[in-house]
Amino acid sequence: MAAYFYHEALNRLLSEDDWLIVQDTYDPKSNFKHETLFTLTNGYMGTRGAFEQGAVPEMPGNYLAGIFNKGDGPVRELVNLPQWHGISVFANRNALRYAEEASPLNAQTCEVIRFCRILDMKQGILISESVYRDRDGHETAVGTCRFVSRHDVHRTGIRLFATPLNHEGVFGIESRIDGSAVNWNTNPKFRAKHFNLLAAEDGDSEQLYLEAVTKDEAIHIGMGSAIHGLSRIGQQTPLPTIYHKFSNEGEECAEYVEFRIGRQETVQLDKLVVTYQSLELNGGRPRDAVHRNLARYRSEGWTQELRKHTNRYAKMWQEADIQIAGSEEDNRLVRFNLFHLMSTAYSGSPAVSMAAKGLHGEGYWGHVFWDTEIFMLPFFMYTFPDLAQSLLKYRYEKLGGARENARIAGYAGAKFPWQSAASGQEEIPPFSYDEHGAAQPLWMGKIEDHVTADIAYAVCQYVAVADDPAFMLACGLELLIETARFWQSRVEYDAERRQYVILNVIGPDEFHEHVDNNAYTNAMAARNLVQAAATLTDFQARFPAEVSDLLARLDWRPDDIAEWRKIAALMYIPRDEERLLIEQFDGYFQKKDYQFTAFDALGMPVYTGNPQLAELEQTQIIKQADTVMLLLLLRGFADAATVQANYDYYEKRTWHQSSLSMGMYALMAQRLGDTEKAYDLWLRTARTDLMDRHGNAGLGLHAAATGAVWQVLIFGFGGVQPDESSGMLEIAPSLPRAWKSLSFTVQWRGYRLAVEAEPEHLHITLPEIRQGILQVKIWGRPYAWRAEHSGERISIARRREASING
Amino acid sequence: MAAYFYHEALNRLLSEDDWLIVQDTYDPKSNFKHETLFTLTNGYMGTRGAFEQGAVPEMPGNYLAGIFNKGDGPVRELVNLPQWHGISVFANRNALRYAEEASPLNAQTCEVIRFCRILDMKQGILISESVYRDRDGHETAVGTCRFVSRHDVHRTGIRLFATPLNHEGVFGIESRIDGSAVNWNTNPKFRAKHFNLLAAEDGDSEQLYLEAVTKDEAIHIGMGSAIHGLSRIGQQTPLPTIYHKFSNEGEECAEYVEFRIGRQETVQLDKLVVTYQSLELNGGRPRDAVHRNLARYRSEGWTQELRKHTNRYAKMWQEADIQIAGSEEDNRLVRFNLFHLMSTAYSGSPAVSMAAKGLHGEGYWGHVFWDTEIFMLPFFMYTFPDLAQSLLKYRYEKLGGARENARIAGYAGAKFPWQSAASGQEEIPPFSYDEHGAAQPLWMGKIEDHVTADIAYAVCQYVAVADDPAFMLACGLELLIETARFWQSRVEYDAERRQYVILNVIGPDEFHEHVDNNAYTNAMAARNLVQAAATLTDFQARFPAEVSDLLARLDWRPDDIAEWRKIAALMYIPRDEERLLIEQFDGYFQKKDYQFTAFDALGMPVYTGNPQLAELEQTQIIKQADTVMLLLLLRGFADAATVQANYDYYEKRTWHQSSLSMGMYALMAQRLGDTEKAYDLWLRTARTDLMDRHGNAGLGLHAAATGAVWQVLIFGFGGVQPDESSGMLEIAPSLPRAWKSLSFTVQWRGYRLAVEAEPEHLHITLPEIRQGILQVKIWGRPYAWRAEHSGERISIARRREASING
Repeated sequence: MAAYFYHEALNRLLSEDDWLIVQDTYDPKSNFKHETLFTLTNGYMGTRGAFEQGAVPEMPGNYLAGIFNKGDGPVRELVNLPQWHGISVFANRNALRYAEEASPLNAQTCEVIRFCRILDMKQGILISESVYRDRDGHETAVGTCRFVSRHDVHRTGIRLFATPLNHEGVFGIESRIDGSAVNWNTNPKFRAKHFNLLAAEDGDSEQLYLEAVTKDEAIHIGMGSAIHGLSRIGQQTPLPTIYHKFSNEGEECAEYVEFRIGRQETVQLDKLVVTYQSLELNGGRPRDAVHRNLARYRSEGWTQELRKHTNRYAKMWQEADIQIAGSEEDNRLVRFNLFHLMSTAYSGSPAVSMAAKGLHGEGYWGHVFWDTEIFMLPFFMYTFPDLAQSLLKYRYEKLGGARENARIAGYAGAKFPWQSAASGQEEIPPFSYDEHGAAQPLWMGKIEDHVTADIAYAVCQYVAVADDPAFMLACGLELLIETARFWQSRVEYDAERRQYVILNVIGPDEFHEHVDNNAYTNAMAARNLVQAAATLTDFQARFPAEVSDLLARLDWRPDDIAEWRKIAALMYIPRDEERLLIEQFDGYFQKKDYQFTAFDALGMPVYTGNPQLAELEQTQIIKQADTVMLLLLLRGFADAATVQANYDYYEKRTWHQSSLSMGMYALMAQRLGDTEKAYDLWLRTARTDLMDRHGNAGLGLHAAATGAVWQVLIFGFGGVQPDESSGMLEIAPSLPRAWKSLSFTVQWRGYRLAVEAEPEHLHITLPEIRQGILQVKIWGRPYAWRAEHSGERISIARRREASING
Repeated sequence: MAAYFYHEALNRLLSEDDWLIVQDTYDPKSNFKHETLFTLTNGYMGTRGAFEQGAVPEMPGNYLAGIFNKGDGPVRELVNLPQWHGISVFANRNALRYAEEASPLNAQTCEVIRFCRILDMKQGILISESVYRDRDGHETAVGTCRFVSRHDVHRTGIRLFATPLNHEGVFGIESRIDGSAVNWNTNPKFRAKHFNLLAAEDGDSEQLYLEAVTKDEAIHIGMGSAIHGLSRIGQQTPLPTIYHKFSNEGEECAEYVEFRIGRQETVQLDKLVVTYQSLELNGGRPRDAVHRNLARYRSEGWTQELRKHTNRYAKMWQEADIQIAGSEEDNRLVRFNLFHLMSTAYSGSPAVSMAAKGLHGEGYWGHVFWDTEIFMLPFFMYTFPDLAQSLLKYRYEKLGGARENARIAGYAGAKFPWQSAASGQEEIPPFSYDEHGAAQPLWMGKIEDHVTADIAYAVCQYVAVADDPAFMLACGLELLIETARFWQSRVEYDAERRQYVILNVIGPDEFHEHVDNNAYTNAMAARNLVQAAATLTDFQARFPAEVSDLLARLDWRPDDIAEWRKIAALMYIPRDEERLLIEQFDGYFQKKDYQFTAFDALGMPVYTGNPQLAELEQTQIIKQADTVMLLLLLRGFADAATVQANYDYYEKRTWHQSSLSMGMYALMAQRLGDTEKAYDLWLRTARTDLMDRHGNAGLGLHAAATGAVWQVLIFGFGGVQPDESSGMLEIAPSLPRAWKSLSFTVQWRGYRLAVEAEPEHLHITLPEIRQGILQVKIWGRPYAWRAEHSGERISIARRREASING
């Protein structure tokens, strides 16, 4: 283990190197990005990696899943709530006197002579240490270890170590809860304060308490905090304090403690924080819940909560970890993406889902897009089925809003919003401002309708993979029926073509608005109709009473099933039969051609023209995977030659301006047998945030890309897919040359399979005993066995028979 | 005129060089000091010279005279109120879009490649300009001119100029009212928030409005602001805006405007601000007053208010300016001290006086000390008698508090507090914290009783100089009687000595606590008793009815006059008759001797021992003028030889740890004929804040030192003093060698005398016609004349007869 930190106690906390993301140089220009990369979240709360000691510039963020507000702003957005992480250290010679000035140690007031910050992904902790040299030449090491607990999501904590290296005297430490937080603090035009402060109490019970109330819905968020365990490192007895106060300073409250510390002596203390919000308390005020939990937290202590937290992470990694033999760096990349992906989902409430930017920043206003169902959900389906179910329950919960969206747009059924928050209604603002300050209408909310089919698709995928008919009966079926009804009302019959068409949409490629018959949309809508019809028919037979009740409630007409099937069967898909090409939308091939040939240092295609939408619309340049996306999701939609032709055509014309794009091309490249190309595209996807490839990592996680990283690994290199015809799970790995093996765990219909794929061998372990017979196809050959002994390991050679080892 | 600024419009605003205090290098280490030096105040409001664009570190301050609060803190202190001065400039290429980050131009985000800030004392304006180079190499000049209006004390204003020097595009300008202000923002231990925010409204009538309410007395402070006159420089037509919004962001509110500006084009705009508080509105809320005044201000405009403001300053300088021929630098020093001194007094309310630190900072908690009456008041008596009267009315208004103080201490009459704020009761905290964090009792409030005699002294001085018997009758007499009664109860009769003694006091020298018979205190108390007796006797004769009413109200015993005279006559003063020395207090000469011989770079005596009070008490080292102070104030108290002996003795033993000290020694040196020594000490006094000679200029003005600077000039070098025996004004100038002449204006019993003193000649002009005969003693010889013609100039040669020129 490298000695990253001055404080040995911090070094001792660290996991092995391939679990660490290390920032070893202090560079304020990278502050925004690192705040995102170093976000800690338990799905309930997300706290960006802003420094305890503050920084210039900074964009600190603390968010609770599901807490949105619009206020005077243009958009209902995830609220940047009071910040709990602030701690300032004052290294003075003397106890502070009244008229004395004191500067906290930070990068603004001091020279940072040593710096290291590490995200330990194995444990979900963030360790940061700076050695500051102040104007007097005094050097002080200040280190912190922070977590956002997965054991009790209401708890967060920081342990702080501070050591005067070449001086001694009185230290002051100030712990703050800062309610001055705003959204978009770096943008004076769109900056918004989304809450008022109801209370900022001090000291009642030797703790801080601050309560925020959102402006629109009056959601109360209470936060309590206490400094705990002030001592010399390793000593049980408390360090005597010279002064200790709790103060209420308007939007902030602060606890300040002063004590004496000798040269090269290390002081340690813990900041314990508890947060509740009124939505989870049936509207009650969070004050009592905060006080009760904080009292328990104080008696249990930071170390115990940390241990419980890291135990949870150990359990999560047992499910989620993917190990690559052959590249420590690739291992770290995978873990970085999976760490943020798995940390962000929350099963505690069906009222919340995962936003496109996670709980990692204010980008896309904290809204939920199709990213969740199409890019992130597969990871959860195969790894944490409970979380997958919870993410889909969110959509079910928002059916009311989706019905209202459909009604507003003049359609039947449920039309899911392009951007979803708390109500399920459309949250995209009606317009954006361009660089000239002119308002430009935003059409996605009105016509980017594929999201509705995407959600229906995800429901069916989940139910198949998790084998969860109960969810289908309770939630999925109603969602399928309502989305099918939307498409039923949305399509038009084109009498000339004698086919159904869908006019005036935006497909995944948002460079082209108001297009007719986007192949992706049409095909996904047809799939939605087919699956609704099939599932309804199936469930009517299996659960006649329950389905009958549902249909009565939905005021459903029996003729609909037949009409859904008819529409699906007659859905128009524009094609160039000669070239085997699916045309992305009517008239796409008439647009001006453009093919990318150059790439920049970040591996992004270089476009030399005018990047205005008005010009792009005239070209065949597409923002992101669209037709290729369709061919990925609907595997039986086209034959191999057609898939290859479309991949070849569209790949050259894709600008990858969305982080949703490159991973999907990687996956398709792998399917088409070009593993090294897939590997290259996968690497770029995996580095989306670490290398800030889209220039906006500071605004939050590219969560869809993290999901794509997993999909390329498991569906691509791991070759995992459900075989729809046989109902078996297929596993057909094909690894990049750089890798010796790829190990992962997937869950399939209740079975847990630990897979180790080597270029020519596959090993499967079933860690748990389970009744029944597991049927899988490995490299195209079917196998079946009983998981009678936990830990049984099966090894199969490529193109050879299975040999069973004990 | 030097071209200090890039923006010619700013250069054109400037007065002549000897009126300017120029800071030409940006040095964040000096920010606190410069905030004090560049404070603008009209007596009603004081705004520290913090940058519009913010800085690190900074200690911005905005205070309203008379607004105090204690809250949870240890001390009732002058409240740091919401800040009105903030303006940020964003120089972007494009109109800001939603997820974009924008950095304001300031010294944290940019390189400051050119900087100048100038206090123009003639006009009372602060001009600041920086040329910033941002990360993209874009250079932008941003200049501001700020005033705190003396015409309408509720109005403040900033004109801003901004020019993109090598780029162009969209600028955003954000104007803020910042209610996050706290007292002692640089001290986490004593930091205090003294108000809650009642309202932070946006945009109702296209303006910001924020209302603060003090926590203890619920004083409402309303502040409104609007951006006005956005245009290209010199153009009448408004610049078209791209975007304009008003927002409420918790404790802050902000107005943001966006517009397009070309390369090297200059945009200008004005920030107009209006402030009211409920004390001046009979407790009413200030909202309407703010809105009405701001509406008028907007229609009148920044330029008109600036003109009215500078006209007021021109009138003030007509009274107050002192011109020195022979040293431009000395001229500037004098003006610096007089500028802050005269700017800080306020005649608008008898509820407020001048604090020891002015309205320039939070040092000494904004409290009023004896500094006001003994150090600052003489300037006002001779220059602005109305302001002098107002300052004394403050003490009369607080008589109730002083009576309560006496009652609490077990005495009769009125005992003025050592530190006075709004109530007149003692505001000094009961203890302070030492460097070890231990609480140390503060005794000044209990036993530094001389302040009561000082105030009585000042009342008599004022009435004599201003010839204001009406004030004496209405206010002064009651104050004299009540203070005399205090001393009457405070003294003890020492039967052995057969004299009256005053035991257990602190004199002006605070290094020695709990002393008996401090000569200064005893002599000033005797003077208080004598003057009370004399004035009461005199006024009983002149205004029998009014005085009779007063005495009835005060429940006064006729015997008191005789007792006051007896106590005064028998007041014990410790002396060493042999050495002609007055002993500072009983036993002082038995203390360990110490004489200062070395001085540091700032001209401060160097003490090499332990500077703890416990050790100092054992020595003869004194903090500041004490016995010498007595000999200055009570001119007939001792003969010339005694004065010389005491000066020689105590001067060597004075550490000058108070800024009240050196100026008094300068004055005494001059009286004793050592003009060059006086000049040296005077120069050091005049540089107290400019050179930060006490290391705490950042905490506010050393207002007493500014008063001392005037006293040494007028009473010392100008030789001005009332001749108590003849009732004439004496003028006997004696100039430092470096000066060719000293010109000043004084008012004396209703006459206005413009005096020009040269080494061997004196010229007097009486600018106004006035009835009566002015009698003056010049260089010891009496003159008398009628001021029949305005502008009449009299020239007198030293030791020769007057020659009268037309």
